[in-house]
Amino acid sequence: MPAIKDLSQLFKDIDDFAEEHFSEEKIQQWCNWGGMPPEVIRAFYQSNLGSYISAENLNKKDSFIYCAALIAHLTRKAGTTLPLLSEVLSFVLLSSLQQYTSPKVFNELVCKDKRIDFCEAFSEPGAGTSAFAIRTEVSSENGQIYLDGEKSFVTSGEFMSRALVLAHDTIYGQYDGGISLWLVDLNQAGVTKCSINTIGQEMTNPSAIIFNHVLLDPDYRIKTQGDLDSVLKRQFNLGRLLVCASSLGLALAAMDDAVHYASKKQSSGKYLYALPQIQEKFADMLSKIKAMQALILNAANLAHKNDSEFVLATSLMKYYVPRAASDVASQALQIFGGVGYTNQIRVSRIWKDCRGNQIAQGTDEVMVHSISKQLIRSYDSVLQTL
Amino acid sequence: MPAIKDLSQLFKDIDDFAEEHFSEEKIQQWCNWGGMPPEVIRAFYQSNLGSYISAENLNKKDSFIYCAALIAHLTRKAGTTLPLLSEVLSFVLLSSLQQYTSPKVFNELVCKDKRIDFCEAFSEPGAGTSAFAIRTEVSSENGQIYLDGEKSFVTSGEFMSRALVLAHDTIYGQYDGGISLWLVDLNQAGVTKCSINTIGQEMTNPSAIIFNHVLLDPDYRIKTQGDLDSVLKRQFNLGRLLVCASSLGLALAAMDDAVHYASKKQSSGKYLYALPQIQEKFADMLSKIKAMQALILNAANLAHKNDSEFVLATSLMKYYVPRAASDVASQALQIFGGVGYTNQIRVSRIWKDCRGNQIAQGTDEVMVHSISKQLIRSYDSVLQTL
Amino acid sequence: MPAIKDLSQLFKDIDDFAEEHFSEEKIQQWCNWGGMPPEVIRAFYQSNLGSYISAENLNKKDSFIYCAALIAHLTRKAGTTLPLLSEVLSFVLLSSLQQYTSPKVFNELVCKDKRIDFCEAFSEPGAGTSAFAIRTEVSSENGQIYLDGEKSFVTSGEFMSRALVLAHDTIYGQYDGGISLWLVDLNQAGVTKCSINTIGQEMTNPSAIIFNHVLLDPDYRIKTQGDLDSVLKRQFNLGRLLVCASSLGLALAAMDDAVHYASKKQSSGKYLYALPQIQEKFADMLSKIKAMQALILNAANLAHKNDSEFVLATSLMKYYVPRAASDVASQALQIFGGVGYTNQIRVSRIWKDCRGNQIAQGTDEVMVHSISKQLIRSYDSVLQTL
Amino acid sequence: MPAIKDLSQLFKDIDDFAEEHFSEEKIQQWCNWGGMPPEVIRAFYQSNLGSYISAENLNKKDSFIYCAALIAHLTRKAGTTLPLLSEVLSFVLLSSLQQYTSPKVFNELVCKDKRIDFCEAFSEPGAGTSAFAIRTEVSSENGQIYLDGEKSFVTSGEFMSRALVLAHDTIYGQYDGGISLWLVDLNQAGVTKCSINTIGQEMTNPSAIIFNHVLLDPDYRIKTQGDLDSVLKRQFNLGRLLVCASSLGLALAAMDDAVHYASKKQSSGKYLYALPQIQEKFADMLSKIKAMQALILNAANLAHKNDSEFVLATSLMKYYVPRAASDVASQALQIFGGVGYTNQIRVSRIWKDCRGNQIAQGTDEVMVHSISKQLIRSYDSVLQTL
Repeated sequence: MPAIKDLSQLFKDIDDFAEEHFSEEKIQQWCNWGGMPPEVIRAFYQSNLGSYISAENLNKKDSFIYCAALIAHLTRKAGTTLPLLSEVLSFVLLSSLQQYTSPKVFNELVCKDKRIDFCEAFSEPGAGTSAFAIRTEVSSENGQIYLDGEKSFVTSGEFMSRALVLAHDTIYGQYDGGISLWLVDLNQAGVTKCSINTIGQEMTNPSAIIFNHVLLDPDYRIKTQGDLDSVLKRQFNLGRLLVCASSLGLALAAMDDAVHYASKKQSSGKYLYALPQIQEKFADMLSKIKAMQALILNAANLAHKNDSEFVLATSLMKYYVPRAASDVASQALQIFGGVGYTNQIRVSRIWKDCRGNQIAQGTDEVMVHSISKQLIRSYDSVLQTL
Repeated sequence: MPAIKDLSQLFKDIDDFAEEHFSEEKIQQWCNWGGMPPEVIRAFYQSNLGSYISAENLNKKDSFIYCAALIAHLTRKAGTTLPLLSEVLSFVLLSSLQQYTSPKVFNELVCKDKRIDFCEAFSEPGAGTSAFAIRTEVSSENGQIYLDGEKSFVTSGEFMSRALVLAHDTIYGQYDGGISLWLVDLNQAGVTKCSINTIGQEMTNPSAIIFNHVLLDPDYRIKTQGDLDSVLKRQFNLGRLLVCASSLGLALAAMDDAVHYASKKQSSGKYLYALPQIQEKFADMLSKIKAMQALILNAANLAHKNDSEFVLATSLMKYYVPRAASDVASQALQIFGGVGYTNQIRVSRIWKDCRGNQIAQGTDEVMVHSISKQLIRSYDSVLQTL
Repeated sequence: MPAIKDLSQLFKDIDDFAEEHFSEEKIQQWCNWGGMPPEVIRAFYQSNLGSYISAENLNKKDSFIYCAALIAHLTRKAGTTLPLLSEVLSFVLLSSLQQYTSPKVFNELVCKDKRIDFCEAFSEPGAGTSAFAIRTEVSSENGQIYLDGEKSFVTSGEFMSRALVLAHDTIYGQYDGGISLWLVDLNQAGVTKCSINTIGQEMTNPSAIIFNHVLLDPDYRIKTQGDLDSVLKRQFNLGRLLVCASSLGLALAAMDDAVHYASKKQSSGKYLYALPQIQEKFADMLSKIKAMQALILNAANLAHKNDSEFVLATSLMKYYVPRAASDVASQALQIFGGVGYTNQIRVSRIWKDCRGNQIAQGTDEVMVHSISKQLIRSYDSVLQTL
Repeated sequence: MPAIKDLSQLFKDIDDFAEEHFSEEKIQQWCNWGGMPPEVIRAFYQSNLGSYISAENLNKKDSFIYCAALIAHLTRKAGTTLPLLSEVLSFVLLSSLQQYTSPKVFNELVCKDKRIDFCEAFSEPGAGTSAFAIRTEVSSENGQIYLDGEKSFVTSGEFMSRALVLAHDTIYGQYDGGISLWLVDLNQAGVTKCSINTIGQEMTNPSAIIFNHVLLDPDYRIKTQGDLDSVLKRQFNLGRLLVCASSLGLALAAMDDAVHYASKKQSSGKYLYALPQIQEKFADMLSKIKAMQALILNAANLAHKNDSEFVLATSLMKYYVPRAASDVASQALQIFGGVGYTNQIRVSRIWKDCRGNQIAQGTDEVMVHSISKQLIRSYDSVLQTL
């Protein structure tokens, strides 16, 4: 567990950043736009906060504790899912892929101002996060290489000019079990983007991208040499960590608002917080938040290892945290009564945001199998008494 | 319990009506507009369905079984909360109020084409559905009578030219515990309407209405003569019945879609419905739906009596049904995976709609006290073995 | 649904019977003995109650509504699981088997005083209620027929002199998918009985019975002629109905005691029933009991048909009811505080009894598959709106 | 958080102790007897384990982490609630009381062989753990001091010759809000003990003790000088910590057995652990255990402070842990099927034991109020993001 002092400094930096750049009015605007303004993202990278996701810091043993805390606290301040989550994940992917990538290609993955310049086109309609079910296909025709297929839930797909695309590939995929990873220019012929209207998480603005016989340049294949599966698995597990950190931030924001409301608002001459039924909710919400924190810290502490213990920790966390966050948000909404069901408070937005994380990066259902497999395999090491 | 045959005819009529007037595309349009087109509402009244809510039918012993079945099945077909729910409730209120209302006033409550022409302005910000906490005030000044205050969650407030307003009233309210009911013209000076943006139930389009020293005409007071409390209580309890019928319809629509999807869609070569984790969801959803149906039928069967047994039945129903419906919808959404979180399917809309009914017409929390009070009072009659 | 009047008479008869024969002191004695005294069972058959399970009544359309109501109300009065449940089930089995059974054998299944004189030895350790997993084996050796194997959870096994034994049988089982049913004398060589110590349901006193090369008489085989599977399935489904009726009776007994206690007992100057946290429990308990009643009535109403709709109804009931009953009992226990955890009240016994029914006659887990299969198969007929 | 290495040594010592002194056969015997044999308790004190609860160690900053770990792991090995829990608590009380106690009285609180020689007679029928509701009364008559009243749930009351009795006291209690604490010889006239038959936790063997005009010696009053309330509160909070540690140990024992069974036992040719419904249970059980561990560690880490943060931590822990443990045990029992409901496995005993801890040391319901009060009071310090 990191020293409390360290995270305190991080939280203070985030408080300062949020104080300067966030307000509920701006957040609502950004949700309507479907993204954060570039100047705010730039300010993020130029502040102290940017350093936490620099390449050198991402290699440190405890870097993911900081990443998780960063996402959790920033999300708590914003009261909505932030696209910075995928920025951080893309930096993580970048650092994993660097060794397999030529300098030319690598340079195209980042902007001049050091920001990420690609989106991750991994998911497909009906395939979820499983690499095995991918149907986007690499094929050759008259000596040329083509890409066909459809990707969905590509975060920030609309804003990026390039995508890392995961494809079924019988030509180059032999070392990676029949799949391969390509950097694809999204401005070329045959690429169609369309926005996906989700019912929450509006700033993440996911797209579907259709590839209709898009010409590929073999130089832009990431030469993963048999490591692709392991790179993807790590990426998914770290994605789960940050999604859960975001869920925690959402739950805390809902709790903040509900406690604040219950300590100001009266009903029949009594403060809400003094009513036993409200107290029941607070006890339940608080115990869920504490459990969420413990499971996230547990996973973050193992993140530098990437072994089966880390997989169990992230699966267990992903199984529990997003559902618990939805529940916390729903109880907070209920405390507000009728107003809770309107746009006048941010808890209603938080409640909708939370729901998405029960699906993102692997549903609760997918986690169950993973947990049980690891549990049986290494029961003794896993279940220490305290 | 009504003969199955009777409800079958009702369901058939609804199927025909929905076949002709509903389509998912239209429903989405109406949600965007915030209401059903007048010609569809007119068609409803002119069809067989209209007769179920006619004055003579609403006085029959089993009329509320038909009303509940009507709302439930129509909502199931539409896959969203329909403003017809409040139309039906307004007819119910109208039939309760007729005896206290002068013909002149009564005529203004209905349109020429026999449709309702008023909205119910009962709720207030922070007062929920409790008549005791009302702060909208009737006062006299220089021999004139004025109304001041704010009402919220007035369904269809924007479309109606008149409102029935519940007010704190020290002048005329003496027989009714200090409250009174007025028909107020919403087009006069001092009335401001503003739309409330809820996160679901978009066709109901609730408004806030502010009354700023609005002149009242004493002829337009409903002369309830001490019966107002009892009229309101009955109205709230019938409101609970129809809200729960609507929740049931929403849950059934979600179930319909999820079962249909699970019987078509495969994952790793298996139909979804064959996966034990999906089956767990279906078992849970189905048992919740059966319980919802039983509690609604139970309340509807007692609705003609308006005694404490009916109050217990509606409280128990309102405590259980909307929460169970939310849960069914959430499980249905989860079965769709990523698509479930988008506007591409109607289950996501249903999920948002369901949430509102956990608050509308009295929160779960309010019901608990009512249940326990009735339970202790008349335990033996209430808890028959089967 | 049967006329209320009819069940009222049944309930009145049960009240009279319980008044005369039950007292908490006697019930505790019978639990310690592991059975009801023969004279009480005899009195049951000689009272009005006995007629409800007579052969002619069991063939009527609504007989299982009466059986379920009988078990539920009698159990509610006793506050524990009664061995009469298996008596009733045995009568049901008897009426199913009569057509396949020679008069000689049939006469040995009933005592002179018309009571049942056999136990059902169907379950096996590790095979649950599934007939396919049976390992008790019929074999032939030197022209003789032998039985070898072990049966478990044989209710009243210790008191009966004969058992109906289900066995894997390659000799006579060809028409019944390799299984057959035998009436076996338990007093002959090779039969060993031993008591199973369950943690509740003490009056049912289940035994394990070991058959070590027990000689069989082919005359005592029930000649089911290919109908055995269907007879067994019906028996299991009716078993589920009565087990659920018993669960309902237990839950009602717990509710009775908790409501009575909460209306007498004060804490810090307030009656327990006036405390919001107790009221929450009552609301939850009551909604569960109403759901239990609806699911049991639903299944009982279909019991004369034995079609797939009945199977769905019993599976759904068995999935929901025993778990809900455990929950009701646990909440009742909690209302009693420290005393709830002692033998001074019957709720603690009820709580232990309830747990067993989550396993008896097929676990919750087994039901899930059955529900989903029927649901997909006949969705439209199953899910009427109201 | 203590270094893992330290707890590893503790766990190893416990493993050795359990290896030598525990076996399922012995545990069952001790449950039947209602206590551990004196020689085993003596062996405990003479082993390394005894030192963890010595006076000097109990004053160290992290002593309660060791105590909690000790109780949790020892309980996990035994698979039942151990009376050592109250021994440890009595040592804790002893170290709190030493400063208020004359050497003469202090010497009578411990045996010659340094074991505890008193029981804690605090609870009363109907008063739970609240000191304010106590009705046992100190009175004076003819210059003599007498004690009258009834205490319940006195652990090991039968084995001890002295009790520390909490009483309402208008004579000596003025500095302590009207209550006082006395060491009472249980062998004198007017004392009656009777055993309370609980439905689990059999080794703790609680008694009711009735004091009928028992003569008190003022020298044997503990002279708490206004600190009694604070001493009792600390004692209750530490009691909650150890009860929760015991619940954790029980849950782990159930998990151990269920995982072991599921990895050996097959159903229809598949290992149980490979069945999705079993996997669901494991995922849920594991997430609950992790949450339990986090909440216990959290409270144990604050135990040396005794401030409002510690009270919040113990309340939250007590609210969550025992209920979660019951749930884990119930799921484990279900995995065993029919055998789970019998005495053939220890999970059935664990399930019954767990239930008691939902009531012991303050019900879930009592915790809710405490949590909410502390939460509102010091929200910011309490709810750090990670």
